[in-house]
Amino acid sequence: MIPKGFRAAAVEAQMRYKNRLDLGLVVADEFQAAAGVFTQNVSQAAPVIWSKSRIARGRAILVNAGQANAQTGRGAADRCLQSAAAVASRLEMNADEVLLASTGIIGQPLNVEALVSATPSLVKKLSLDGFNDFSRAIMTTDTVPKTAEAEVPFESGPQPLIWGVAKGSGMIAPNMATMLGFVLTDAAIEPKLLRSILSQTAEATFNRITVDGDTSTNDSLFILASGVTRPQVITGGREADIFKKALHKVLDSLSRQIIRDGEGATHMVEVKVRGARSQEEALLAAKAVANSPLVKTAFFGEDANWGRILAALGRSGADFEPYRVDIDIDDLAWIRHGLVFCRDMDATMAMRKKEYRLSINLNNGPGQDRMLTCDLSYDYVKINGSYRS
Amino acid sequence: MIPKGFRAAAVEAQMRYKNRLDLGLVVADEFQAAAGVFTQNVSQAAPVIWSKSRIARGRAILVNAGQANAQTGRGAADRCLQSAAAVASRLEMNADEVLLASTGIIGQPLNVEALVSATPSLVKKLSLDGFNDFSRAIMTTDTVPKTAEAEVPFESGPQPLIWGVAKGSGMIAPNMATMLGFVLTDAAIEPKLLRSILSQTAEATFNRITVDGDTSTNDSLFILASGVTRPQVITGGREADIFKKALHKVLDSLSRQIIRDGEGATHMVEVKVRGARSQEEALLAAKAVANSPLVKTAFFGEDANWGRILAALGRSGADFEPYRVDIDIDDLAWIRHGLVFCRDMDATMAMRKKEYRLSINLNNGPGQDRMLTCDLSYDYVKINGSYRS
Repeated sequence: MIPKGFRAAAVEAQMRYKNRLDLGLVVADEFQAAAGVFTQNVSQAAPVIWSKSRIARGRAILVNAGQANAQTGRGAADRCLQSAAAVASRLEMNADEVLLASTGIIGQPLNVEALVSATPSLVKKLSLDGFNDFSRAIMTTDTVPKTAEAEVPFESGPQPLIWGVAKGSGMIAPNMATMLGFVLTDAAIEPKLLRSILSQTAEATFNRITVDGDTSTNDSLFILASGVTRPQVITGGREADIFKKALHKVLDSLSRQIIRDGEGATHMVEVKVRGARSQEEALLAAKAVANSPLVKTAFFGEDANWGRILAALGRSGADFEPYRVDIDIDDLAWIRHGLVFCRDMDATMAMRKKEYRLSINLNNGPGQDRMLTCDLSYDYVKINGSYRS
Repeated sequence: MIPKGFRAAAVEAQMRYKNRLDLGLVVADEFQAAAGVFTQNVSQAAPVIWSKSRIARGRAILVNAGQANAQTGRGAADRCLQSAAAVASRLEMNADEVLLASTGIIGQPLNVEALVSATPSLVKKLSLDGFNDFSRAIMTTDTVPKTAEAEVPFESGPQPLIWGVAKGSGMIAPNMATMLGFVLTDAAIEPKLLRSILSQTAEATFNRITVDGDTSTNDSLFILASGVTRPQVITGGREADIFKKALHKVLDSLSRQIIRDGEGATHMVEVKVRGARSQEEALLAAKAVANSPLVKTAFFGEDANWGRILAALGRSGADFEPYRVDIDIDDLAWIRHGLVFCRDMDATMAMRKKEYRLSINLNNGPGQDRMLTCDLSYDYVKINGSYRS
């Protein structure tokens, strides 16, 4: 179910990919508020720079797949303006109200001629049923479209919806994952509060996933609120908590879908660390394990090679005593006091599951955090050894 | 040529590997000084803990391959003592004069019975010609033994030698690389000076290589000086510089051999960064590029995907302006002001070489540093997906 007040469409613009949907548009026919979070990479793509300064006014989202429009030189900003203007003129909007996002190869100039030519049919196709097409148009190496939704269960009055769509499968790491995410709601929410809730929720979800430790130049997450179903503006308190919880549900689902679809991934592993001296050290430890090529190849090989986990923890920067570390795989007590506690075969069996949780207790303090990761397989190398060609 | 004053041997101790040399011994019949540097990992193997506190007295080096003796619990220190004592008693040494090093799987108890049983024949085999056997006995996933030597070209008097041997091909990253290195010299050098020269030289060589960003629990680098050829003790000044330069030559050669033999490696790439705000930021930038799975798979695919390099630089923590970045591949001007400057085909051709240098200029300050890395191939995943089985 899509929240009320929005339409979407996608077309084959032939910008780089041939004969597949590669240009998508979402429009808020009713607009109440918008917010976004963006990549922390020093090298930021032109659409990121464009959208950052216009996010609060964003009533439309134009997305292309195949060309990142990053590191494309002086003409890049102009191409953004041309893209936004082409859409805006047909929607009776100002170009500044059109948010842009791109995904694809860095350094290739955006094929803006193809984009502009495709605009009339794109706008014409806008409909309440266009969201499926949109979710497919934004894919690159993704193998499946990724969407999630939740009702916002307010205690009284109309219950608005939150719907989200995301893409991403490689160059995935905080902050942000290489990903694009677009979230729509028909609730109404005070703009500053919306931004703060979005950024906190992204921190707990999209910023806790990694495929390869690489952060992209293009990561963007937008939320648009129409206020159609529940026009009473949320300003804080219990209502904000309920909204935030529903948003978390949507972003958590999308981030799991991204990891499950990680390039070449065959296993999804949640690395939970507790007992660190601080939350910061817990996150360092979780990231070291979640990004270690040796740990990730062991996940792929379903090899209960716990020494690699200890070694990754040991170089993470977190302080702990190796002989106090406990590790569980789901409910299996695998490591106790830094030593193997179960039969090797039991650990191997536990790692054969497609999805499992590694719970690491450093027993050295109150700090905890987590990362979602996937394994490192032949196919990751294959996909990335030849992505451009 | 081996420096004078040393003998070596290796045997098949059948500790874990069957029917291959897996236990090696080097003895300084004349002893003048010793020094070492060790892994910075919080989780340190028992032989590291053993050798760290005994390094200055070390007159013998006992090394086993196949079992790391790391995270093996309370018995681990005892097994170290038993191992050292078994050798010492046959060499009329104190156990505290026997340095230990292990490489192999973490968490498997050391097969000390097999080790002790093999000691008599090991000691008996000690000879001036045992160094080849020794260099093969310390290998694990290494495909070739790695040795290097240099003369110390003093302006007058006898010219001593430096000889080194190393192993390592995965779990390689500063500080240190997962590697064992053993260096012998027949110069004499003041012990504190020797330690300082070794640690500075290791910092510039072994601590500038990475295969997979993982640092091991067992990394150790020892140097033993016999003083046989040149008994005049070096205490500083010009002689120390000459010695240091020769040592650098040996360690640099060994570290390049390690990268060339990196697990699954098909290309060796030197990542040089200059123009950073500081040396620290240059190193952050070089490490981000050298460890990025996306960059390393592009090296493997011989794909001139410079956007991935810019993206890795951008998330490295180094401060710079993306449109001021210049990158060369050897002598080819590839990127100028953040944009492609040569034909794509020329860059691709340059990346077909087995070994090349990426020179990155951030044009933002005086800081420079470098890392040596290799590509990420199918074989890396294959080797590490099944190493234990």
